[in-house]
Amino acid sequence: MKFVRYGEAGQEKPGVLDADGGIRDLSVLMRDLGGETLAHLGALEGLDVAALPKIEGTPRLGPPVAGIGKFICIGLNFADHAAESGAQVPPEPIIFMKASSAVCGPDDPIVIPRGSDKTDWEVELAVIIGKRAKYVSEAEALTHVAGYAVTNDVSERAFQNERQGQWTKGKSCDAFGQLGPWLVTPHEIGDPQNLKMWLTVNGETKQDGSTATMVYGVAHLISYLSRFMTLHPGDVISTGTPPGVGMGQSPQQFLKAGDIVELGIEGLGRQRQAVLADDPA
Amino acid sequence: MKFVRYGEAGQEKPGVLDADGGIRDLSVLMRDLGGETLAHLGALEGLDVAALPKIEGTPRLGPPVAGIGKFICIGLNFADHAAESGAQVPPEPIIFMKASSAVCGPDDPIVIPRGSDKTDWEVELAVIIGKRAKYVSEAEALTHVAGYAVTNDVSERAFQNERQGQWTKGKSCDAFGQLGPWLVTPHEIGDPQNLKMWLTVNGETKQDGSTATMVYGVAHLISYLSRFMTLHPGDVISTGTPPGVGMGQSPQQFLKAGDIVELGIEGLGRQRQAVLADDPA
Repeated sequence: MKFVRYGEAGQEKPGVLDADGGIRDLSVLMRDLGGETLAHLGALEGLDVAALPKIEGTPRLGPPVAGIGKFICIGLNFADHAAESGAQVPPEPIIFMKASSAVCGPDDPIVIPRGSDKTDWEVELAVIIGKRAKYVSEAEALTHVAGYAVTNDVSERAFQNERQGQWTKGKSCDAFGQLGPWLVTPHEIGDPQNLKMWLTVNGETKQDGSTATMVYGVAHLISYLSRFMTLHPGDVISTGTPPGVGMGQSPQQFLKAGDIVELGIEGLGRQRQAVLADDPA
Repeated sequence: MKFVRYGEAGQEKPGVLDADGGIRDLSVLMRDLGGETLAHLGALEGLDVAALPKIEGTPRLGPPVAGIGKFICIGLNFADHAAESGAQVPPEPIIFMKASSAVCGPDDPIVIPRGSDKTDWEVELAVIIGKRAKYVSEAEALTHVAGYAVTNDVSERAFQNERQGQWTKGKSCDAFGQLGPWLVTPHEIGDPQNLKMWLTVNGETKQDGSTATMVYGVAHLISYLSRFMTLHPGDVISTGTPPGVGMGQSPQQFLKAGDIVELGIEGLGRQRQAVLADDPA
């Protein structure tokens, strides 16, 4: 099943896609798509979606999960991306946080922050936790997943690498975390380690990879993270990006106002973002 | 005014201290102490606290702010602490995130995670944001503060420094973020840069400092952070620790089961934590 949250930012309502790709209103069944609700999405597999109210038009989509507790990112998790970043593949996962205030809808614009000239893109597979995970084994890890989504882990490379330690600073700007369009249930995706992923800038392919080449797969990451902190329903793990980011181009290329970024992952839909200049207050 | 949240974890109710230090029930006025509510604490200065229902006994205290969106920490923000960590004072603030799932009540135990032998303490001044801040000047920064609190930025040094990049890994374990006992309004604190701060382990003084020796003060930090991301009501900034952490002792000293940690900041109350071994699942 494919779940969405639709409506204006901060006012989104939960929905589910019908057989024709239209949005059906789920708010009769749940207040929102987040927290403990996420543990029960599997129970909705038998739902008569066609019997739910149809939403007309094409509303804005928000991130398909509400109230994200923490947004954990994995660094340098594709060997080729590590190489283009001038880094080694780490002997265990590198983790960092993106501020949850950076998260927005899949087609919301990328807003270049004031003082930025190195705003970059990163297509990533996001894993949405559905069930509390603490010290879980790799074998049982995937039972804690509510679903998967596309994310753009937008990154300001000067803020990240040239402005004193710790990557958070370059990862947490507002509108630096497009998530969606859908939360797709594991039942529908099957193996998360065999999904094509891609990203274009102004129609030119920049990233063209697959989750098959991740260094540390989804099950390993959940198990690993759960040794350091409890994962709660509504937490998101962004699993790293394949090669082709702007920092890795020769010469380097960064986003500028007017650019159009499109990205997607097999089975998880696509995003399209306009790039806006100079973030207003 | 001093605000608290009291009751079992996850079930806390808002309260306010009366003239005798007793807890009065605030839930008649607000559902909880968090989010947009925090912008209006100043309006309660004229409240007839004695007219509110008195809470009998000594309930557990939770963190004095609910629904923390992001918990931002400042690294190496006291020159002497940087020196004991073998690091330079950074030319601009180092920022990293602690998972909000690490936050707990002021007297909740410190739980040593499995596999840890370097769990350490850090008394810090926490700033709780009351009003949205984006690109704010240093001059106006303090008007965005809802209040101040004590925090223990508990840190696992091997996870932080020896387990691949990015400090988040050693800062985000469950029960690694004691916050409280109180949220104290700025009106009551006055200058946040002149508060004594201290920490003892088993009664022996380890940290004995003052917010006066911060490298980057509260107003600067709010202004600085607001250039990288919007600060929202209920966000917390932990402003760094003075010298005397376990990593800086000679020989190094880390927490073990049975230890008692006490800490406090002038005007903001004190915390007392038992240290428990080997985190159960």
